Amino acid sequence: MQNIKDIPSIPPNIRNLRINPARLRSDFDSLAQIGATPQGGVNRPTFSETHIASRKWFKERIISAELEFRQDGAGNHSAFLSCGPPGAPTLLLGSHLDSVPDGGKFDGALGVLAALESLRVAKENELSLPIHLEAIDFTDEEGTLIGLLGSSALAGNLPYEVLQHPRGGCQKFNSALKQAGITVKSLLGAVRDPESLAGYLELHIEQGLRLLKAGADIGVVSAIAGISSYKLTYIGRADHAGTTLVQKRLDAAQGASAFTLAVRDLILDEFPECVANVGNMHFSPGAFNIVPERVETSLELRAGDPKSFEKLETAMFERAHREAQRFGLGLNVEHLGMHSPKLMSGQIQEAIVNAAENLGLSYIFMASGAGHDAQSMLDICPAGMLFVPSVDGVSHSAREFTKWDDCVKGANVLLQATLILAHHSGVKR
Amino acid sequence: MQNIKDIPSIPPNIRNLRINPARLRSDFDSLAQIGATPQGGVNRPTFSETHIASRKWFKERIISAELEFRQDGAGNHSAFLSCGPPGAPTLLLGSHLDSVPDGGKFDGALGVLAALESLRVAKENELSLPIHLEAIDFTDEEGTLIGLLGSSALAGNLPYEVLQHPRGGCQKFNSALKQAGITVKSLLGAVRDPESLAGYLELHIEQGLRLLKAGADIGVVSAIAGISSYKLTYIGRADHAGTTLVQKRLDAAQGASAFTLAVRDLILDEFPECVANVGNMHFSPGAFNIVPERVETSLELRAGDPKSFEKLETAMFERAHREAQRFGLGLNVEHLGMHSPKLMSGQIQEAIVNAAENLGLSYIFMASGAGHDAQSMLDICPAGMLFVPSVDGVSHSAREFTKWDDCVKGANVLLQATLILAHHSGVKR
Repeated sequence: MQNIKDIPSIPPNIRNLRINPARLRSDFDSLAQIGATPQGGVNRPTFSETHIASRKWFKERIISAELEFRQDGAGNHSAFLSCGPPGAPTLLLGSHLDSVPDGGKFDGALGVLAALESLRVAKENELSLPIHLEAIDFTDEEGTLIGLLGSSALAGNLPYEVLQHPRGGCQKFNSALKQAGITVKSLLGAVRDPESLAGYLELHIEQGLRLLKAGADIGVVSAIAGISSYKLTYIGRADHAGTTLVQKRLDAAQGASAFTLAVRDLILDEFPECVANVGNMHFSPGAFNIVPERVETSLELRAGDPKSFEKLETAMFERAHREAQRFGLGLNVEHLGMHSPKLMSGQIQEAIVNAAENLGLSYIFMASGAGHDAQSMLDICPAGMLFVPSVDGVSHSAREFTKWDDCVKGANVLLQATLILAHHSGVKR
Repeated sequence: MQNIKDIPSIPPNIRNLRINPARLRSDFDSLAQIGATPQGGVNRPTFSETHIASRKWFKERIISAELEFRQDGAGNHSAFLSCGPPGAPTLLLGSHLDSVPDGGKFDGALGVLAALESLRVAKENELSLPIHLEAIDFTDEEGTLIGLLGSSALAGNLPYEVLQHPRGGCQKFNSALKQAGITVKSLLGAVRDPESLAGYLELHIEQGLRLLKAGADIGVVSAIAGISSYKLTYIGRADHAGTTLVQKRLDAAQGASAFTLAVRDLILDEFPECVANVGNMHFSPGAFNIVPERVETSLELRAGDPKSFEKLETAMFERAHREAQRFGLGLNVEHLGMHSPKLMSGQIQEAIVNAAENLGLSYIFMASGAGHDAQSMLDICPAGMLFVPSVDGVSHSAREFTKWDDCVKGANVLLQATLILAHHSGVKR
């Protein structure tokens, strides 16, 4: 494929198309009423009453826009616009309508509505493109039942084992599926033919502070961070805390505490592009008057690319062992699981950059610390994401907020990137 | 009362009395067989089969020494030697035969056997003293059921509430009492008349390293440390650990960890005579991918006198708040309970010093970090303790060890201090 920047730019009549901000705003405000919380957020966990109401509302908006409503075996809902030749692949745009409990009204919703708006613009302008367009609402991105359920099913990367151990428990999972008319068989049958997909593009709020700090309009997502989790156990000796001098103790709490502080310092000093978290500790025997013999710590590391990940992991464990030595402790490291960092499609990143430049918007490249449906989609087609700024970096909270101007900028970049990709005959592998 | 040093020393025939080391050793070795563990310690939790066997053995030793066997309503067993005039008060010597699970063979046992041996020496020398002597084995010093149960009952400081909330649970407590023929009524009836007691004196192993570090033979216990326990809760904000930059977090784990390290440093740098312990932490929500919002830490402080205690507490909380501020956290401090530091009888300390000097032994004054029956006894009569060195400072473990020579030295100091106190007409209040 040619580099997008090297080929003639798309015709002005297409390059000048914009979304309808009033129509997008009207949709946004209507949707935010469904499951609205007193604090100003929304509460739409997957297949809750409010979530089902939001899906019904979405279906009605699709029909009233005279787009084709589609639903697959995983409960993914979408608007389809047949704007390409017969047999042409489809470029998917989308996000999700479900929320975490007492979440915000931007996370997911903005991406679904901007996708729908992009299709409406394409339809009302009667565009004829080399590809078809589809605006999709993925089932259970947030993981009320199983995180990224809809996109994983569509991408065919939903292992049967995962279905047998849903996060919320089997009973909740089965009854929710039944209520939604979904079966394990239909879930496994939701997989799409890779040949039928031109790519996947998603607009989302950043959920962090990098855009605001950089003063940029658009975040071009270069990767979704790899996530690895570990159990680190510091091992000392359980002594009588009343009679054992502090300097004679082998106190596992000292090692675990020193490491917890070191995790923060390492990120600040050496890995500002990564994040890490000590989310839990468990003490044994855990009594007031006994020196802690064992402290288990729950560590999570995230980095945007495999090289950074490896460096981060090496530095963390080198430090973990140094802190153990400092206090005369043993250390046992158990690796619990890993999602490898996933690099976004370079072609889609270029299309987003091109669109932002056409619109006179500033942008930076950034890795996403959070997981998104795009990471499932990367297994089956080129995928990419763009972010708009989150005020205070807050998300999964009623305090989640993105300025409306920034939402409109993001939606226009989504539309233009879509048209650029379509104009250049879709996305090549 | 006159200062012991100012009055004529006791007659040579009494000053030259010594315990019989071979007889003491024979008793010690026999007792150590009862509940012996493969690791070389003993396992005699209160009212276990092995503990009951050890009490039966003690009773037989009392009878074969032609001393009077006594048992009270709290299950305390003792040897009584009527060597004073009718109506004279009794000087109690003793310790306990129970052990922690898989404990050592010196803790408690040495004190009971040295007390018994002291009475045998007094008896075989047909001493006529102004007071009677009694060698006592207190029930449940270690707290299998309720810590210091026997001495608290004897001193009349066993609150009814404590009996209703035994540490090992009500069921275990009631069935153990029933098996031992003890009732709540008999427990409460075990209280002694303060006028009947001349004092209490106990030999014990140090369970720490101060004697060895000082190169001293004998520890003259000046006080039993005050113990206070607290729940400190650091309060931050639960953010998404994947998307929230480390420098923007309010991470409760950072405050709790920094404080845990500071506790150690404060003791080492400013309070070498005190001890402190962070024995437990509890994280909320406690997930790998959520920044800890709340971390509860269990803190215990011990100091030998009220002034040190106050300074220690002030310094600890000043530091706890400073660490909270450093990380932008809230801090909630809850005081859970306090045993005030208890000063030992000055007269008994002087008698121990006098005895050590007579025997040509070196000594230091020290506070006891651990609790002992002497702290109950202080509520009803003058009480004092002496320590002998613990190799490696280990106790509550099969590794617990005191050189036999040191045991003999301690037993001779116990005997001589007893005779000095008796010679000077018992202990005045």
